[in-house]
Amino acid sequence: MGQIIKGKPVADAISEELTKEVVELKAKGITPKLTIVRVGANGSDLAYERGALKRCDGIGIATQVVELPEDIIQEDFIKELKKVNEDKSTHGILIFRPFPKQLDESVIKYVIAPEKDVDCFSPVNVAKVMENDSTGYAPCTPSAVIEILKHYNVPMKGKKAVVVGRSMVVGKPVSMLLLNENATVTICHSRTQDMPKVCSEADVLVVGIGKAKMIDSSYVKEGAVVIDVGINVDEQGNLCGDVNTGDCTEKASMITPVPAGVGSVTTSILAKHVVKACKLQNNL
Amino acid sequence: MGQIIKGKPVADAISEELTKEVVELKAKGITPKLTIVRVGANGSDLAYERGALKRCDGIGIATQVVELPEDIIQEDFIKELKKVNEDKSTHGILIFRPFPKQLDESVIKYVIAPEKDVDCFSPVNVAKVMENDSTGYAPCTPSAVIEILKHYNVPMKGKKAVVVGRSMVVGKPVSMLLLNENATVTICHSRTQDMPKVCSEADVLVVGIGKAKMIDSSYVKEGAVVIDVGINVDEQGNLCGDVNTGDCTEKASMITPVPAGVGSVTTSILAKHVVKACKLQNNL
Repeated sequence: MGQIIKGKPVADAISEELTKEVVELKAKGITPKLTIVRVGANGSDLAYERGALKRCDGIGIATQVVELPEDIIQEDFIKELKKVNEDKSTHGILIFRPFPKQLDESVIKYVIAPEKDVDCFSPVNVAKVMENDSTGYAPCTPSAVIEILKHYNVPMKGKKAVVVGRSMVVGKPVSMLLLNENATVTICHSRTQDMPKVCSEADVLVVGIGKAKMIDSSYVKEGAVVIDVGINVDEQGNLCGDVNTGDCTEKASMITPVPAGVGSVTTSILAKHVVKACKLQNNL
Repeated sequence: MGQIIKGKPVADAISEELTKEVVELKAKGITPKLTIVRVGANGSDLAYERGALKRCDGIGIATQVVELPEDIIQEDFIKELKKVNEDKSTHGILIFRPFPKQLDESVIKYVIAPEKDVDCFSPVNVAKVMENDSTGYAPCTPSAVIEILKHYNVPMKGKKAVVVGRSMVVGKPVSMLLLNENATVTICHSRTQDMPKVCSEADVLVVGIGKAKMIDSSYVKEGAVVIDVGINVDEQGNLCGDVNTGDCTEKASMITPVPAGVGSVTTSILAKHVVKACKLQNNL
């Protein structure tokens, strides 16, 4: 019977470490600050925002929310974003996406200051993830996956990691991060032939494909570590992941739950990136 | 006995197609132009340059070489590069690397105009490769691998592709390009455990690890397609790849030679990227 590995202990450990770092920064007269840029007020953005603000507050990171009207035009949005870029008190910027239709993400991503882009929106940070350049910022969710694996002492070096999904928010960046940890990485997706066989060779299986409970025990090797990045709502209206956790728990040696798994760690990563950005911007 | 698949027929087919496109462009009064920026005069740069100039000339692409002194300082190099960026007659720019010590690649890569960066030096193009954004430019060598596979009608969709090596010039970008072709992609490297077993599951095996003749038949599945990106010099002073071609020919269904394989296709890809850049810059 595998161990259910929760996100909270990982988030707590990161927060504890960051709290100490923030005390040291404040002693130098520096307060790390996150500015969130939100267009409109959709429920999931607001839920994540509450979590992020609470997390930052607990650590001692200052926060600000720039709320912009749902119908803001591109030119005005860019003007507002440039103000945040230039605000010297802001070290990290998180912009909620997707945008309403009138805003062109493919233009705006070039506007955010890369050194403040703590969730990998800028192409500069996308390139740094691929290049394994430690001055960059990987997206928070794939970074959370790696932090969980490290926290629970899961060996990655030389091991077979299989990633299910090839999105720019999970699959591709997490593959690059696993490669940086010296895993042998396989990327699967909707066109993969005989996916259960491919997945069942994995020592570490990371799933982010957006299909409720798709991964059952036929995809899991005896003793594998399974990280479930999916967030879906099942037929009963309950939150669930991409992994059928109940079915896989027997074979997996460790498995993350949904909820209370990867999702619990992302705001800590966000906070970690803000502190890192603050230090880099102060040459510390 | 497998088929030796040479690069020349692929290069010829690309060149033939480009020659037609250039005729059409010239009829519109537009001549695509490549500008090569070279610091100093090392032998391998000059050899590649000769090949590139000859290829472009054959297709009807105009060329220019900006030769800069070996001891040029960073500030002057950037000034020269900006001139090429701003030269309206230049559509594509190739800069030879690595640079001499006094030039900082990590700064200069942000200076080259991304829309003229036909060999993926700019982080903007690195990000586009990862994002599968067709307005970008992948590096010429990994693009050549894909062109060879397509030319010889090798199925990639849903197939297992294994890439040996994780460099930014071959392994990582070719993995992303294979993923764009809907292959299931595994990336191996020096830390991979039991690499022969991992590789011998590949339908398509792409090798770019920089070790002469490292890959023997124990790495190859019966019927696999093997693409050898390595260029090394063996003990007898002859050019050879990363694959022991003689040993692998029995098992592979197709295998590229070295020399006369992937390396023969890269200048055609360069030319293709210049024509693409010219069209995009002219809104065609």
